[in-house]
Amino acid sequence: MLRVTHPPIAPWARAWCPWPEMKNHVPACRLQWPHVHLCHQYLPPTAVNTTARLAALRDIMRAHRVYAYIVPSTDAHMSEYIAERDSRLGWLTGFTGSAGTSVVTQDKAALWTDSRYWTQAERQLDCNWELQRTTWIESIGLWILKAVPVGGNISLDPFLFSIDTWNSYSQALHGSGRTLLPIENNLVDQVWGDQRPPPASSEIYTLPAAFTGSSWQEKVAGIRQQMEQHVRRPTAVLLSGLEETAWLFNLRGHDIPYNPVFYSYTLLTNTSISLFVDELRLSAAARQSLRAGCPGPLCVELQEYGQTRTYLHRYAQGNVTIWLGTKYTTYGLYGVIPQEKRLEDSYSPVMLAKAVKNPKEQELLRAAHVRDAVAVIQYLLWLEKMVPQGQVDEFLGAQHIDTLRQSHNRGPSFQSISASGLNAALAHYSPSNGSSRKLSVDEMYLLDTGGQYLCPLIPSPWDGTTDITRTVHWGVPTPFQKEAYTRVLMGNIDLSRLVFPPNTAGRTVESFARRALWDVGLNYGHGTGHGIGNFLSVHEWPVGFQSNNVPLAAGMFTSIEPGYYRDGEFGIRIEDVALVVNAQTKVPFLTFEVVSLVPYDRNLINLSLLSPEQIRYLNTYYETIRARVGPELQRQRLEEEYLWLQRNTEPFPLGSAATTTTATTILGTLISLLAVLLTGLQA
Amino acid sequence: MLRVTHPPIAPWARAWCPWPEMKNHVPACRLQWPHVHLCHQYLPPTAVNTTARLAALRDIMRAHRVYAYIVPSTDAHMSEYIAERDSRLGWLTGFTGSAGTSVVTQDKAALWTDSRYWTQAERQLDCNWELQRTTWIESIGLWILKAVPVGGNISLDPFLFSIDTWNSYSQALHGSGRTLLPIENNLVDQVWGDQRPPPASSEIYTLPAAFTGSSWQEKVAGIRQQMEQHVRRPTAVLLSGLEETAWLFNLRGHDIPYNPVFYSYTLLTNTSISLFVDELRLSAAARQSLRAGCPGPLCVELQEYGQTRTYLHRYAQGNVTIWLGTKYTTYGLYGVIPQEKRLEDSYSPVMLAKAVKNPKEQELLRAAHVRDAVAVIQYLLWLEKMVPQGQVDEFLGAQHIDTLRQSHNRGPSFQSISASGLNAALAHYSPSNGSSRKLSVDEMYLLDTGGQYLCPLIPSPWDGTTDITRTVHWGVPTPFQKEAYTRVLMGNIDLSRLVFPPNTAGRTVESFARRALWDVGLNYGHGTGHGIGNFLSVHEWPVGFQSNNVPLAAGMFTSIEPGYYRDGEFGIRIEDVALVVNAQTKVPFLTFEVVSLVPYDRNLINLSLLSPEQIRYLNTYYETIRARVGPELQRQRLEEEYLWLQRNTEPFPLGSAATTTTATTILGTLISLLAVLLTGLQA
Repeated sequence: MLRVTHPPIAPWARAWCPWPEMKNHVPACRLQWPHVHLCHQYLPPTAVNTTARLAALRDIMRAHRVYAYIVPSTDAHMSEYIAERDSRLGWLTGFTGSAGTSVVTQDKAALWTDSRYWTQAERQLDCNWELQRTTWIESIGLWILKAVPVGGNISLDPFLFSIDTWNSYSQALHGSGRTLLPIENNLVDQVWGDQRPPPASSEIYTLPAAFTGSSWQEKVAGIRQQMEQHVRRPTAVLLSGLEETAWLFNLRGHDIPYNPVFYSYTLLTNTSISLFVDELRLSAAARQSLRAGCPGPLCVELQEYGQTRTYLHRYAQGNVTIWLGTKYTTYGLYGVIPQEKRLEDSYSPVMLAKAVKNPKEQELLRAAHVRDAVAVIQYLLWLEKMVPQGQVDEFLGAQHIDTLRQSHNRGPSFQSISASGLNAALAHYSPSNGSSRKLSVDEMYLLDTGGQYLCPLIPSPWDGTTDITRTVHWGVPTPFQKEAYTRVLMGNIDLSRLVFPPNTAGRTVESFARRALWDVGLNYGHGTGHGIGNFLSVHEWPVGFQSNNVPLAAGMFTSIEPGYYRDGEFGIRIEDVALVVNAQTKVPFLTFEVVSLVPYDRNLINLSLLSPEQIRYLNTYYETIRARVGPELQRQRLEEEYLWLQRNTEPFPLGSAATTTTATTILGTLISLLAVLLTGLQA
Repeated sequence: MLRVTHPPIAPWARAWCPWPEMKNHVPACRLQWPHVHLCHQYLPPTAVNTTARLAALRDIMRAHRVYAYIVPSTDAHMSEYIAERDSRLGWLTGFTGSAGTSVVTQDKAALWTDSRYWTQAERQLDCNWELQRTTWIESIGLWILKAVPVGGNISLDPFLFSIDTWNSYSQALHGSGRTLLPIENNLVDQVWGDQRPPPASSEIYTLPAAFTGSSWQEKVAGIRQQMEQHVRRPTAVLLSGLEETAWLFNLRGHDIPYNPVFYSYTLLTNTSISLFVDELRLSAAARQSLRAGCPGPLCVELQEYGQTRTYLHRYAQGNVTIWLGTKYTTYGLYGVIPQEKRLEDSYSPVMLAKAVKNPKEQELLRAAHVRDAVAVIQYLLWLEKMVPQGQVDEFLGAQHIDTLRQSHNRGPSFQSISASGLNAALAHYSPSNGSSRKLSVDEMYLLDTGGQYLCPLIPSPWDGTTDITRTVHWGVPTPFQKEAYTRVLMGNIDLSRLVFPPNTAGRTVESFARRALWDVGLNYGHGTGHGIGNFLSVHEWPVGFQSNNVPLAAGMFTSIEPGYYRDGEFGIRIEDVALVVNAQTKVPFLTFEVVSLVPYDRNLINLSLLSPEQIRYLNTYYETIRARVGPELQRQRLEEEYLWLQRNTEPFPLGSAATTTTATTILGTLISLLAVLLTGLQA
């Protein structure tokens, strides 16, 4: 699945026509707001009435002398997906998109979100809200400067903002005479009161040794070794990201959707281990595993989740140095540690250790992809039969693929993207019941889905997080659709088969996934890939091809997902997960091993565009798919799917069409000549 | 020519065996220092006696209570090449390499430089100095911390350090109890006294309109427009880089080697223009041009060069905002401006405007490359005749190419690199008289040279700065040499023919120049290219493929120069200068037009490695060379060179060898068959 970090907005469009009224003042805005009338008159039924909530929040703001209050969309762990309980933005505004920021003053309320969510926000916001079509903090800052008089306070909950975001706001307001004032007691929560969903209570469980390849004690020892070897000799590592604690202790939970993590913090010192979590939720096995080394340096002391700040504050009074990753630490916790006692990196050593999978994890993730391929192949075959009958819409399709995966998994790894025709041109479209497009043999269809696997089958368990995108067409695609699809595929192939030296940053090679598109003036507006976990997050930092990702190393998994989107017409994306492995070079260079195992749509490939090397690569990949998925389909007695797989992995003919034609023509001419001559002579 | 920013030193090697004595203490260091005996006993005659200079400097340091004094290799404008007068490091240490830093305490003196210069430094430093084989400021900081007691001052001249470098030293000493103390009166200059070369006195002249395509008044208006449109509304732009002032006013001088610039600063405000320069050196025409608009906003006020600091200080007292580029501004000038009055970017708007050449400049630079190609072709033909006779060495070769260019240029644009055999594996080797390797038909030879052109020939003048590298072999190269050369060439071609969208950063596409090498586990350790000026600097920031370069835009010139180096054996580099132009795509994408016009060595190309697209590209490029250089060779009556050009630009056969063979074989077989049949029938 795509990880959108910067919405594809042209800089000039940032501040243009931010709200409907603009069309009365700026002629150009009529284009953007052609059908907007008086707000209340045309309010859609999907909008949520937020008047009472806003009034209550404004009362509390007045009591705190707060002129403007900023409410973000994330939680205290900078999670990508959040629990209902943390959906403060959604509750306050009515808007349920995954990314946004709102600011409330006494007489105004505004929501900032990116282009993926503009339509949705228009349908969900009531007339209390103005929609701002950008996510730049500078733009939020300018809005605040207009709304708040000099001397006024702007407040936020410091435990909901990363250090970087805090700094950006701080900079945007710098020297303006307004003060950015953290208030630890969240104001929205006070208004939300007992209507707010309760904390998670489901079990937190331990992963069996067969899944981990490394005990938590070994992981702790590795991190402590890094602490000892670091020139600044940190005495502790602070973990704020939920994946960090889950990975370190080989624990999982289900506190937030899609990612099997649980609310927690960890403070790992050179002599002790503190896990901040709701102790009562730990399974007996988990509890036993954590406490087995007590007392001693490998004893995990269980502390209350709510005591993290206090405990950290006390620890930071000593002669200590605390190592932390700034990307996942909130300003609230960061501020507790005196500056000279911080050792800051973008990512904690745990985040970096987690990024490189051990051999057991690699084996399990490979195995999960075989299971995943079976589900996707079942689905593609089902579509082939059902779509021509006009019986499938996007929502039904999404439900069906989720069901097919369910037989051996723990649910989808993100909300399934099932998009037909022009809907696929929206990068993050997910269908909803009731507003779902019918799949048709006349349109392309894009499916971007994944599963969370954890199957303790003896003797060969598998687990892992998968993410795969295939784009298909059951009828007659246009030549342009075929060319665009083929060029996206060429990009996928060119990056997948790249050989590169160690320490190469993803951003310096991701253009190989774009070149075939660039050649004819096409491109795509999103990143080329992201890291992925072992029964953890589908978007796992800091691996991938973005500018802030770490260099690629053997043992890392990343998606490779070029695409092409034509507004109002169609969208193409071809996504595989690949493992970074050693290349077959004399020196230790690297390359990718693609572990996703589903063939591409032959109906959309224009073979004449592919180079012999690309065709050879494709044929080898298809041999791998046959070898790995074929036996599993047979084992599950999926005979029809097995035949589908054989059909769809037939090797492609090598050598360019042009060359073959020339040779054939010469041959033909000569044979004709021969025939004529012989006939003539015989006559 | 290469622009080396980070020497290729392995991190573990940074602190190893820093001086000869280490071999007595660390066994591993015997490897690095096998032949070092007592320093004085074996001091080479090339070493400079620095005892008196150091003693005098130490006296002054004591008077200032300075424990350690840092002397860098650059000047007050962060110039890459410097005048003798600014070679403080060279005078103090004896070491004449272009990059280094020295630190002097009362009982120690050390020089830090990168691997290009280690051998040279060993030969030039006397026993007062220890050589440190790294350039990391952290390592200099650690050395200083060992040498200076807590409470001691470390001093430097703030006008010789960039803001970034100052900050790095500041950080390295932070919290250590030592103080970094700027002293504006340079201590080395005080010791140097009247032995120091006098300031430049040669004429500063104006470029005729035929060379610029844009008057200085137009340039000033453009920069002022940017100031007005900037959200922070700066009132002034400060220019410290010598190229910036030279470009803005269409002036040139010869104060430093290779780059035709002159000592100056500029403060361009919204209402006035102050040029800080030695007024007496301006030519009458230059003076007239600058003063034509006086009084008024387009009047250039000429101020004394030495008054820059004072003037800036006064200006900064007002209600002003001063825009500056941090890369070229020294900490000395920067510190004069109060923080809230600074508007900082990496590069000034002048630096960015200069990076995009106007149509006239593009035309001139293209024309300069035709003249340059003639000189290089003359040289290559000369070598073909002379080398087999064993009459040419590297130094003689370098002299000869410089002479060939001299007929219509203003000297080389950098010190010619003329390297035979294993010497070419040293990235920046330049031969010297007396220690120069003989060129041989048994070895590869690398030539990296360029010229400064300014020829006011009517009606078609040309000017520009050129930089080209060719690698040749006159005998029988090994298969590996041919493969390596061909793969370097493939990289050059792949990047040159790349089509890419606007706003693409060079660092995200430079891997295309490496892929063919990577495929077989090869690579090179330097950058892939740099910007280049119009009769200005051969290394012109911020254009190129490095991580801190700005996105590529139409009108920028950059070198494209992949290479391959095999220690102790040979070195390959193929460098062309290319102009960023609009591609032939429907949307406004970009690509490169290679403006260097010299064919590659056919003797070193293994054609079977090239793809049909690469061969087609090469043939089209050769057609361009013939069309552009051929007529000029004929005009100059260089008949032999003309024939050489025709021979060396013969189109390469298309289609892979394999395919051709197959077709030929079939054809041959059929024709034989036909012949047999006909003969048989006739008989």
